[in-house]
Formats: sequence, C-alpha cells, structure tokens
Amino acid sequence: MIELWHCPDARSFRPLWALEELGLEYRLHLLPFPPRVREPAYLEVNPLGTIPAMRDGETFMTESAAIVQYLATRYGPSDLAVAVDEADYGAWLNWLHFGEATLTFPQTLVLRYRRFEPGKAEVVADDYAKWFLSRLRQVDRALADGREWLCAGRFTGADISVGYALLLARTLKLDADFSPAIAAYWERLRERPGFKAAKKAQKIELDEALSS
Amino acid sequence: MIELWHCPDARSFRPLWALEELGLEYRLHLLPFPPRVREPAYLEVNPLGTIPAMRDGETFMTESAAIVQYLATRYGPSDLAVAVDEADYGAWLNWLHFGEATLTFPQTLVLRYRRFEPGKAEVVADDYAKWFLSRLRQVDRALADGREWLCAGRFTGADISVGYALLLARTLKLDADFSPAIAAYWERLRERPGFKAAKKAQKIELDEALSS
Repeated sequence: MIELWHCPDARSFRPLWALEELGLEYRLHLLPFPPRVREPAYLEVNPLGTIPAMRDGETFMTESAAIVQYLATRYGPSDLAVAVDEADYGAWLNWLHFGEATLTFPQTLVLRYRRFEPGKAEVVADDYAKWFLSRLRQVDRALADGREWLCAGRFTGADISVGYALLLARTLKLDADFSPAIAAYWERLRERPGFKAAKKAQKIELDEALSS
Repeated sequence: MIELWHCPDARSFRPLWALEELGLEYRLHLLPFPPRVREPAYLEVNPLGTIPAMRDGETFMTESAAIVQYLATRYGPSDLAVAVDEADYGAWLNWLHFGEATLTFPQTLVLRYRRFEPGKAEVVADDYAKWFLSRLRQVDRALADGREWLCAGRFTGADISVGYALLLARTLKLDADFSPAIAAYWERLRERPGFKAAKKAQKIELDEALSS
C-alpha cells in the first residue's frame, strides 16, 4: 500500500489531495512539524528530514509536485494527468513545477524569517513576499477569459500544485493581495471533493494522535 | 522550430543541454543577465521576465526542469526519459524536481545576497549555502556503490536537472565542499557531448553578439 508521511497543511498536502482525487488507498503517517526536530526517527524513513515522503513498493519520493505527477500517471488513466499528445502537455508540466519552484519556495522564506526566526532577516521575508506576488500574476493571466482551471480545460495535477501554493499563502496572510480571479479560483479549489477529503483525513489523524 | 531564450550558464542551460543531447534543431536567443532589466523587450516574450523561456509551436514554457521533461518525452523515445513502466520512473520525476526546487532555488539566495546585494542579508546567504550542502548529501547517497548516474542505470534528464545545480554551485564557489563522489560525477557530466555542445552554442552566440 502507498504510504505518505505528512504534516498538516505542509507540502505533503499535494500528494494527499492527489490520492483523494484519484480514490487510491493509502496509509497516512502524521508527524509534528518540523519532523527532523520533533520526530528524529523520521530520518530513518527520509534522511533529508523533509516532508513529504512517499513510498510505493520500491519507489521512494520526496518532491511533492513530482509525487502528484507520479500518482496521476502511474495510476492512470486519470483526468489529473495531461497526456504527451494533448495540446496542453507542456503547460501542464510547467504548472506542476511552477507551483513549487516558483510559487512555494519563496513563501518558505516568508515563513522562516517572519515566523520562525523573526528579527534575523525580515527584509528577506519582505523581498520574497513581493517576489511571490509578482510571480502570482502568471496565474492571474492563465485564468483570464473566465477559465476555471489552469490548463487542458479541466482540473488537473497542475491545479493541485498551484493550489497548494495558494493554501500556504493563506496561512501566511499573503492572500489579501489575491486578485479577484485568483480569489475565485481558490474558492473553486477548496470546494473540490479531493481537497475536502484531504483536509478531513489529516484532521482525523490529528484527532487520533491528540487523544492517544 | 523550437526557440529558447537563454542567458549564459543560467537555468536555461538545462533545456539547451537537453536540446543538444536530443540532437534537435532550435533557435537560440541569447540575452544579457538579468534580461528584465537589460532587455525589457523580453517581457513581451515572457511577462515574468525570467529565464528560460521556450516556445514550440503553441507550447510556451518557463520552468527549466519541466522543459527537459517535455523535450525528452514529446520528442522521444529517448534514453533521457524514464518511462512510466520503468522501475525508476518515480525516482526520475523526483530528481527532475529536486534539481531545481531543492538544489537550485537555495543557491539563488546565495547569488542574490552574497553577490548582487552584498551587505543586505548575508546571514541568509550563509543559511542557504548550508541548506544547499545538506540537501546535496542526497546526491551523494544516490551515487553510492559506484553508480555513474542518478537513476535508471543511464544518463537521463534527471542528471541534467541536478547537473545544472552543480554548475551553479561551481559559479558560486560552493564546489569546495563537494564530496569525492559528487566531484567525480561532475567530471562525468561535463564530459557529456551534449554538455560540451551546449557550452559551445552559448559561446558562439556570445561571440557573435560581442562582434556585432
């Protein structure tokens, strides 16, 4: 069975969301954040100490957007994947990477220097909050003309990759600067059955951990 | 024809390298760095102002590791791609993302706060130099037991994605901390015919630009 190591609302929310959208069975390991400090035994699973980790038989992965692509294609055919012969194949791959490398990493600097290490380099938190918002305009352009989803005319793994970046932006209160198109897109994302099921799955695990 | 917008040794080196490995025809547009400042007309090609940009008919992409995957699969079959039914498919996707999101982005903070904006937040440059080197251990682990390449028992797009991160590390003089296995891997990478051809292609363009 697929195993996923997860912290609530961390990047591992991407594969969790994909697992729910795909209706796959999985085993969820919920960890306190940051696991490398609060659950050192996790280093035996993932020597990097980062979240997520996913194991599927001999396959072991740590990059959240890559796991979304893996699940959608290895357990396809699924509408979450855009096939190599579809017109939006390149756009799909681009959004999968963009959601993490371009929209999520800069926010981790806001998280680190505004929340976890305040007073150390807040100018950097400011630099990358701005950086994030300027890159977010690309999402706004993609949603022009009333488009509902980023590519291929349907909800795909690209929306999971970028959607997680919007979830993190809400956590960091960067969502006050969302354009109307992005705010409406976010509302569509959080109404997805897979999004709701992923939120519920992490809550059930958390409740069990707290009551045990 | 495929068009690639490129700055010497920038992330766009990844798709340039892949184009050369694949033996595809392409048109190279060489730009001064950073193009959003030094060549504002580029914003009409790529409103983000980032490098790379790649156009292939109706397909337009800006994420360098995604472009490598696109080229290797759209213009396959090629050994650069690992197919969905190969054992290392998940590992391949993971390395494609890891090379950029985990190994390259942190180095851009070293580049920014050590080189371009010295005196502003050098502690952040130090934080992310350390961060990069700790994540690089994952590459060391992958090369254990004398393995030549990261996955699938052959040179693939994964090596291009991670190989570019090593090229950037050399530019930033972070390579003094390379392990012997990584130093040897780097030597194998730079001996690839595609790597040499990409280096030559950017030099020819640069020489022409300087002499015109």
